[in-house]
Amino acid sequence: MASMPALHLTDDVNWTALADEVLVHCNQIAAYTEEEGIITRTFLCAPMKPLHELVSGWMQAAHMTVRRDAIGNLIGHYPAEGDGAPVFLIGSHLDTVPNAGKFDGVLGVLLGIAAVQALGGRRLPFAVEVLGFSEEEGIRYRVPYLGSLATAGRFDLMLLERIDAHAVTLAEAIRAFGLDPAQIPMAAYPRQRILGYLEAHVEQGPVLEKLNLPVGIVAAIVGHSRLWASFQGNAGHAGTLPMEDRHDALAAAAEFVLEVERLARSVDGLRATVGALTVKPGAVNVVPGLATFSLDVRHADDAVRQRAVAQLLDQAEDLARKRGVRFHMEHIEQQPAVKADPRLTKMLVAAVETMGFPAMHMVSGAGHDAAVMASLTPMTMLFLRSPGGVSHHPDEAVVPGDVQVALEVMVNFLFCLAGGLP
Amino acid sequence: MASMPALHLTDDVNWTALADEVLVHCNQIAAYTEEEGIITRTFLCAPMKPLHELVSGWMQAAHMTVRRDAIGNLIGHYPAEGDGAPVFLIGSHLDTVPNAGKFDGVLGVLLGIAAVQALGGRRLPFAVEVLGFSEEEGIRYRVPYLGSLATAGRFDLMLLERIDAHAVTLAEAIRAFGLDPAQIPMAAYPRQRILGYLEAHVEQGPVLEKLNLPVGIVAAIVGHSRLWASFQGNAGHAGTLPMEDRHDALAAAAEFVLEVERLARSVDGLRATVGALTVKPGAVNVVPGLATFSLDVRHADDAVRQRAVAQLLDQAEDLARKRGVRFHMEHIEQQPAVKADPRLTKMLVAAVETMGFPAMHMVSGAGHDAAVMASLTPMTMLFLRSPGGVSHHPDEAVVPGDVQVALEVMVNFLFCLAGGLP
Repeated sequence: MASMPALHLTDDVNWTALADEVLVHCNQIAAYTEEEGIITRTFLCAPMKPLHELVSGWMQAAHMTVRRDAIGNLIGHYPAEGDGAPVFLIGSHLDTVPNAGKFDGVLGVLLGIAAVQALGGRRLPFAVEVLGFSEEEGIRYRVPYLGSLATAGRFDLMLLERIDAHAVTLAEAIRAFGLDPAQIPMAAYPRQRILGYLEAHVEQGPVLEKLNLPVGIVAAIVGHSRLWASFQGNAGHAGTLPMEDRHDALAAAAEFVLEVERLARSVDGLRATVGALTVKPGAVNVVPGLATFSLDVRHADDAVRQRAVAQLLDQAEDLARKRGVRFHMEHIEQQPAVKADPRLTKMLVAAVETMGFPAMHMVSGAGHDAAVMASLTPMTMLFLRSPGGVSHHPDEAVVPGDVQVALEVMVNFLFCLAGGLP
Repeated sequence: MASMPALHLTDDVNWTALADEVLVHCNQIAAYTEEEGIITRTFLCAPMKPLHELVSGWMQAAHMTVRRDAIGNLIGHYPAEGDGAPVFLIGSHLDTVPNAGKFDGVLGVLLGIAAVQALGGRRLPFAVEVLGFSEEEGIRYRVPYLGSLATAGRFDLMLLERIDAHAVTLAEAIRAFGLDPAQIPMAAYPRQRILGYLEAHVEQGPVLEKLNLPVGIVAAIVGHSRLWASFQGNAGHAGTLPMEDRHDALAAAAEFVLEVERLARSVDGLRATVGALTVKPGAVNVVPGLATFSLDVRHADDAVRQRAVAQLLDQAEDLARKRGVRFHMEHIEQQPAVKADPRLTKMLVAAVETMGFPAMHMVSGAGHDAAVMASLTPMTMLFLRSPGGVSHHPDEAVVPGDVQVALEVMVNFLFCLAGGLP
């Protein structure tokens, strides 16, 4: 375990006041929305501009200089104590899903700013940059991580031609925001200058609440397989077609849904979900001829996930044969799992334990900017307890005391990192 | 078994030519459609008027006088040999489902006309009326049997206020066709004048084809229960919600779909179908929170059907409790089973056996005008083999030889009935 640094600020800072301010700011940001009465803030929407003004002010108050890159990421820079020092990144995203809560993304950005503010102008042997990514949720252009992909130098310029629901291309949306899409490649950080990346985020699940812990350490972000498939049987008259002559596509899909559930329950850490299912013709008096559905499979270990998917596809084929229907896989997307960096994670563990809490190592079932940033630089990630496990919903919440713990952990982590530098 | 009458016409008639003419007429009628290129002929649609002209001509050629009642049924009258004689009815419907085949309904009307034509003007001790019902499928006004309900004196005048997809009331549709909705009560037959009702219809199922039989005897038309229900669970993130914390509405519905299938397979003659199922939110990465579905249960014995429905509702409640979701039944419709008249059916059996075929007694899983007519008068019904079991589809077919068998059976039946009269 990394040793704690001599240097610390615990006596200088009113942590409770600083954590309260984070929550006040989360509430203020909630007013910046595309849809009256709820929180919806998609990529480079109109309210994102005044929101940048607001957050820039808070960054400046924390002794940062502010810039914006060409994909619309807002970046606060807190200088190092010397020239040519490396940079440590802290970030999360400022966009939301439709009808969102107040904390998903926003909380991580504000905790980053508050951590820098807690330094009170004192320099570290590295610069700190706090990133408010412009896009993580993948709503407006149906591609997630636009902000972090640009930061990591992985933004595919072909994406600029995608259109949103109003036929506005991504390039046009960027220009309308006053930015130049041709500059996106310049948003990429030079790999050798970056020390690492830290993200704080609400858990969006029930694990920490069950354990009665304020924070947890993300050991890995799960990989996922997403596929769309169908069973094709024969439609028929619900009154005249005897049971033994049926090739009911929905009955086949129902059997598959239960196989998915059974397998996921039997493999530790595996999550598998049939979230969408459509039946055709879909009439009360017609035996279903076609059932189309999605399958989402996630696990921290890619081999376990791939084995599960293969096994489920075999079972689908088997039950299709048995029922005289056809199984057809239409499309599959795969994303490998991402592991947190062991060295940075050890420091985060030390920072949590210093606060008197056990370091709960957990797997993130949701994707995060951190998963993209891990391809650029060593990554570590801190989860805050989600009351009720609720997220992507107006009821999303945090416990104020947890926000204070997370803030102190992040500052402890920065000092730990400073102490660990050669 | 009823004895065969001395009187018969087998030597006078070219049965093959008459049956071929029935098929030619089915093909001609297929051209009368609302939708270019396919067959769609809903209640009192524009092409129904010239179609009535066409069919009237065929009725007249078979020595019938033709009238139309106020619900738009076309009726050919073939007089008895004496005054004040009772009337025997033969019928089926002239409307179709959208994108229909050529035979469902139409074939029964044309077989009725051909049977009268086969009499060659020879009188029976009863009049024969052939009915081309205006409405059986329930498409335009989402209520089936409009034609036979009026004939049976069961037409509810409240139905006149219903509107179609273009906001045309049923009353307006009747007036636009040149008929007077106020006259509908006069369409009802006086019960005491009617001897009975015979309907020939394509089976719309695979049973006769499997047995390699041209025709079958309908012993009963199944009753049905139709219900709409839902499982309400909790939506959640497919990545962050552990399997053991889920209350997945689709998994509950899947278990129910398989219970429905299992029960229907275990009870002789029971047919149970989940034909429609909708999942919400219905996203690939969200655990389903709500699954809404239909259930259609049919059996010739009402007690068996009702027991099955009760058992399935119990199972739904049980599995909802087990899974921590809520089961809610939104709506249920029930229709009792209808039995064919034993005396008329004995005559139909004799008429089939005279042709050298075994009389296969079967249950109709679909509803027919005969089910409504059974409330007016003794009913019997003849099924013709459906190649591939296909119906309500352009591929619907009949075997020409089967049409000839059915025609001869119907004429044999009329003579049997004539011989059996006091």
